[in-house]
Amino acid sequence: MPAKRVEAMGRVALVGAGPGDPDLMTVRGLRLLRAAEALVYDRLVAPALLDEAPAAAERVYVGKRAGTHEVSQPEINAILVGLARRGLRVVRLKGGDPFVFGRGGEEAAALAAAGIPCEVVPGVSSALAAPAAAGIPVTHRGVAASFAVITGHEDPAKGEPTVDWNALAHAVDTLVVLMGTESLPGIARTLIARGRPGDTPVALIYRGTTPEQETVVSTLDALAALAGPIPLPPPVTAVIGDVVALRAHLGIAGPDSDTVSLHPDALVTRSERI
Amino acid sequence: MPAKRVEAMGRVALVGAGPGDPDLMTVRGLRLLRAAEALVYDRLVAPALLDEAPAAAERVYVGKRAGTHEVSQPEINAILVGLARRGLRVVRLKGGDPFVFGRGGEEAAALAAAGIPCEVVPGVSSALAAPAAAGIPVTHRGVAASFAVITGHEDPAKGEPTVDWNALAHAVDTLVVLMGTESLPGIARTLIARGRPGDTPVALIYRGTTPEQETVVSTLDALAALAGPIPLPPPVTAVIGDVVALRAHLGIAGPDSDTVSLHPDALVTRSERI
Repeated sequence: MPAKRVEAMGRVALVGAGPGDPDLMTVRGLRLLRAAEALVYDRLVAPALLDEAPAAAERVYVGKRAGTHEVSQPEINAILVGLARRGLRVVRLKGGDPFVFGRGGEEAAALAAAGIPCEVVPGVSSALAAPAAAGIPVTHRGVAASFAVITGHEDPAKGEPTVDWNALAHAVDTLVVLMGTESLPGIARTLIARGRPGDTPVALIYRGTTPEQETVVSTLDALAALAGPIPLPPPVTAVIGDVVALRAHLGIAGPDSDTVSLHPDALVTRSERI
Repeated sequence: MPAKRVEAMGRVALVGAGPGDPDLMTVRGLRLLRAAEALVYDRLVAPALLDEAPAAAERVYVGKRAGTHEVSQPEINAILVGLARRGLRVVRLKGGDPFVFGRGGEEAAALAAAGIPCEVVPGVSSALAAPAAAGIPVTHRGVAASFAVITGHEDPAKGEPTVDWNALAHAVDTLVVLMGTESLPGIARTLIARGRPGDTPVALIYRGTTPEQETVVSTLDALAALAGPIPLPPPVTAVIGDVVALRAHLGIAGPDSDTVSLHPDALVTRSERI
C-alpha cells in the first residue's frame, strides 16, 4: 500500500452510477472510481461497481440500514467535505444521474461553499434506461414528442402539491414516475380525473437493467383501482403513455406485451423476468 | 485481418454515444463498439469514438453531408437490416440516448420485423448532461421537483402543434428544449403568453460536455425579444427554469452566472468557454 499522499486539498467527483447494470456506468466514471482514495455510496449502487474502487480506498456507506436512521443530507455533505479536506480524491457514487432527483446539486453547493473542487460526471438515468430495457422508447415519432419525469413523492393525495396535475395530465405525451410505489394509484386517479384516458397503457419496471428486472404492463384504470400501493417493491420506474404499447413491436423485451391485471395474484403469475 | 465469419444472421446493437464527451460513453457501449464488424453512425458522434471500432469494421455514415440529402430513416433501417443479414455484428451509434428523440424505436421495430436480434444500450442524454456540464441540475430540492424534455421541432408558431403549450407552461418546474435554435424565441413568447414569468432564467448550452462548450444565460423575456433564431449554431440544449440560477452556487461551471443579453454583440463578448 503506497504511503498516504498529503495534499493541501482533495477533490470530489459526483459520479452517476447509472441505472443498475454496472456496464451502464460511463467510461469516465469508471476511471475515477478506479483511482478513488475514498468512496461514498448509497443503496442501489451495484456491488460490482464498488469492487472497482481500489481495495485501499476508504468506503463510507451513507444509505439506509436496517434499524438505523438514514444518514441525513447535511451529514453526507459534511462527510464529503471532511474527506476532501484530508487531501483525498473522493468519488461520491450515486445511482442514476447525480442531478436527476439525486440531490447532487446540494452536495455540489456544499463543496463549493467549502472551496473544494468538484466535478460532476453524468450517468445514465433510470428514468430513460429502465423503459429502454423494457423495450419502451420514451419518445417515438408519431406517438410521443415529449416526456416529463417526476417523483412519486409528488403524491397528489398528500398536502402541499408542488406539481400542477391538471397541467401535467395534458402537457406531455409520456410521463415517467420514479419512486412511486406508494403514490402511483393516487397519481393514476388524478390523471384520469384530469382527462387522461383510463385505457392509457402503463408499464411498471422493477429494477430495470438488472438481472432482477420485471415488467408489468397495465392501464391507468387498473392502477387507479388499487386500494393500496402497487404490488411491486421499490425501486420501480413507471411509464405512462402510448409508447408503452410499442414494446410489442420492438423485439427487445420479449414477446410479452399483454395488458396485465394489477391484481396481486395476476402479478405473480404474469410477471415477466427478462 | 481475420477471414470473414459467415453466420446465418448477424445482430444489431443500438448504442447511445452520449452527449459529446467520448468519456461519457457507457462501458457496455464501448465494449460493443470495439467488437463491431460494421458501424453505422451519424453526425454529433465524437470522432474519438469512431476510432474505437476495429480498423477492419465497415463504416457507414448516414448523417447529413454538404450538398447531398440526409439519408432517410427507411434507408437507414434497410442498411441495418442488410448488414445484419450478411452475418455482421453491427453497432448503430447514435448521439445521446437511442430512445430520446433518436428514432431508435423505429430502427428496433424495423429489425424486429426482419427477425434480426437487437439490443439497446442506453446512453447519457444531452438533455441531462449538457445542463450538468454547465453547472445546472435539472432537479433540485426546493427549486425543481419535475422536468420535461421537448424538441424545438415543436414550434408553437408552426401548424399542427402536438404540444399543449398552455399545459406545458405550468406542468413542470424545468423545461429542457433540444434542437431549438430556430424555434426558441417563439417558444419563449408562447410560455410568457401562457403565464411563465418573463424573468424566468434560461441557459443556452452549445455542444455541452465537449471542449467547445459555451453557455449563455438569459431570460425568457430576452429570448422572446429576438427577431430571428438564437445566435448560437446547433446543437444547443436550452434549460428554462429557476434551476438555471443555481449554477452560481454549484462551483462547477465557473463564476460566470450573470444574466446576459441575447444581443449578438453581447453574446460574442460575454459568452463563456468552459
